[in-house]
Amino acid sequence: MDKKDSVINTGLRGVKVASTLISDVNGEKGKLIYRGYLVKDLAQDATFEEVVYLLLYEELPNQNELISFRKKLSEERYLPIEIIQALQTRPKNALPMDILQCAVPMLAHHDPDIQNTSKETARITAIKLIAKLPTIVAAWERIRNSKTPIDPDPDLNHAANFLYMLTGQPPDDETSKFFDVGLVLHAEHSFNASTFSARQVASTTAHMYASITAAVGSLSGALHGGANTRVMKMLIEIDSPENVESYITKQLEAGNKIMGLGHAVYKVDDPRALILAPMSKKMGEKSGETKWYEISTLLEQKSKEAFKKYKKMDIFVNVDFYSASLFYSMGIPLDLFTPIFAISRISGWCAHVLEEQFAEAAPKAVLYRPESEYVGEYCGPDECAYVPLDDR
Amino acid sequence: MDKKDSVINTGLRGVKVASTLISDVNGEKGKLIYRGYLVKDLAQDATFEEVVYLLLYEELPNQNELISFRKKLSEERYLPIEIIQALQTRPKNALPMDILQCAVPMLAHHDPDIQNTSKETARITAIKLIAKLPTIVAAWERIRNSKTPIDPDPDLNHAANFLYMLTGQPPDDETSKFFDVGLVLHAEHSFNASTFSARQVASTTAHMYASITAAVGSLSGALHGGANTRVMKMLIEIDSPENVESYITKQLEAGNKIMGLGHAVYKVDDPRALILAPMSKKMGEKSGETKWYEISTLLEQKSKEAFKKYKKMDIFVNVDFYSASLFYSMGIPLDLFTPIFAISRISGWCAHVLEEQFAEAAPKAVLYRPESEYVGEYCGPDECAYVPLDDR
Repeated sequence: MDKKDSVINTGLRGVKVASTLISDVNGEKGKLIYRGYLVKDLAQDATFEEVVYLLLYEELPNQNELISFRKKLSEERYLPIEIIQALQTRPKNALPMDILQCAVPMLAHHDPDIQNTSKETARITAIKLIAKLPTIVAAWERIRNSKTPIDPDPDLNHAANFLYMLTGQPPDDETSKFFDVGLVLHAEHSFNASTFSARQVASTTAHMYASITAAVGSLSGALHGGANTRVMKMLIEIDSPENVESYITKQLEAGNKIMGLGHAVYKVDDPRALILAPMSKKMGEKSGETKWYEISTLLEQKSKEAFKKYKKMDIFVNVDFYSASLFYSMGIPLDLFTPIFAISRISGWCAHVLEEQFAEAAPKAVLYRPESEYVGEYCGPDECAYVPLDDR
Repeated sequence: MDKKDSVINTGLRGVKVASTLISDVNGEKGKLIYRGYLVKDLAQDATFEEVVYLLLYEELPNQNELISFRKKLSEERYLPIEIIQALQTRPKNALPMDILQCAVPMLAHHDPDIQNTSKETARITAIKLIAKLPTIVAAWERIRNSKTPIDPDPDLNHAANFLYMLTGQPPDDETSKFFDVGLVLHAEHSFNASTFSARQVASTTAHMYASITAAVGSLSGALHGGANTRVMKMLIEIDSPENVESYITKQLEAGNKIMGLGHAVYKVDDPRALILAPMSKKMGEKSGETKWYEISTLLEQKSKEAFKKYKKMDIFVNVDFYSASLFYSMGIPLDLFTPIFAISRISGWCAHVLEEQFAEAAPKAVLYRPESEYVGEYCGPDECAYVPLDDR
């Protein structure tokens, strides 16, 4: 206790707050594991629905389980009409993440099981949330563009249905697959800031909607979920492969970072980036605009060389570096990148809320309540003497 | 680092995460301090508006500053009509805290300065939030009872205006003063769970609305903001002073806690409870129903004796113990107790968000990102081999 008390743990770096069965990030080896499985294996062969099942039920589904789970998810995609009506009252220039943060508690208002605190209810709530979040994001994109929201299509999978609700056109199989892999890769990443927010709120025994709403807020922060949007803005600013080197020089001289390079945990290339890069390339070719991938890949190569030469350090691409151009080439608006991150990461958030509230291995029933050091010596070491208003 | 890594800090108890200028909780001496001032002094002489000013501007206002600040607050009480319209789409049985969690992000939608990241804008956002939260709670209480929301009255102070918007009747001076003191006492309490949620979300550079929305979620948890509601439910269950002793015996035999007794930090009676108790007594007398106070005071006395005798321990009343009967005697519905807690605590939350994002003493620009220990040995110490769906 004394040792803990003597230091301030800025940002809680290196402070272990829980044991977890959900995921492991091995930054040295570049391995990301969801419940025992390497994400690179899952991204290659499993669909997002299988990964969601894995995160929620701790094992991959067999064929019958998957059929039943996909059915449950697709049945839960619909939004109550009153939520559409509420969204229609919202100003069209509202930030999409702020819309999402208001819509998640609305789902709570309509849930007849809101006061049921069982684990089984919480898992059903998770399925509802994972199913409905894409519908909210797509509905808002339509509403803010003065279009009618599109009903979900139960015959489409999670990824294809979202793109369909967004544009009104079902995507081709390859685009759908790329988007699906994007969802798989963003689903879970241990105790990142938004996941920790969800767990922290859940630790008060608040319900899952309240916990997920907090995570949405955390993800909306520029230091967290906003990163791939900023990567894309950078690519747009660079505009052409021939400007890459001068951009790097300018950033290095100004002491700035290059967006999408570097990560708090990975000491090698982010395993997710290695999967995203070839998809970004192909999606660029499909869209008829290859320059975003070309700028990205040249920026990666030249930045690595420049950091090695001038800063004597190795630098690595992170997940945001190639997801930016991938999503942009799909025609997704820049300010929906973070909501799409949420559509995927909500599966991890929900798994963490379940673990926080119901883990058998570590039943806690204790909320996160850290200490701080009061340094407010406004009147020296003693308290301030109160001066009545008339004498101030 | 090694030391930190070797233990799991359950609930972060005893782990210091920041230095703060905002408040100090001295659990040994029963002292609660807001920016240098003892809360018992503030509760006696200062209004909630003065305390909000103190929390946001780090000093008590002089007379002119207070006049100007009260004017700003009262000008900001109004809600955009579109938010009232959105609330009118909500099911009438929605939980009030879930309504609040959806309404706070709605305020973000209407704020033209939402993308301005300056400290001055953040402080203005704080004033907007503190001013508008009571209007939301009162409007919802009216809407769910099929009544028209009542416009704020700029001539009433913060406390009186809230009670007026709730009931349509301006409260008498004594009731208004008691409610005001209640707000002062709940305004701030260091790194409690909801405040930590707000700071944690703010650490990603998310805006103040997003951070406060997270705090609302945290406060909605039964282990945090729900406590005085549960105290009142207990008093209603006990129903009469003559049932107090049998209730205590029953709880002790079942190994249960007595709600409102005991606190993680205070080792003496909570200084706030000492101020709330006489107000609860007087409010009971005013309302013509004195039994809630009588049950409370007898329950305190007999519980202390019983814990001493049977458990060999001293036990102390916390803030929730007498606030329950105080608010109940004012005619406030049980499920608005936590929203009223939020109306007060939002002032502390906002001060903490400002400190998290703009503190000169400790500029961080680092988000809370703790570690966890992965124990998911689903396939032994190695990764699981991926089995294709067809073979499962």
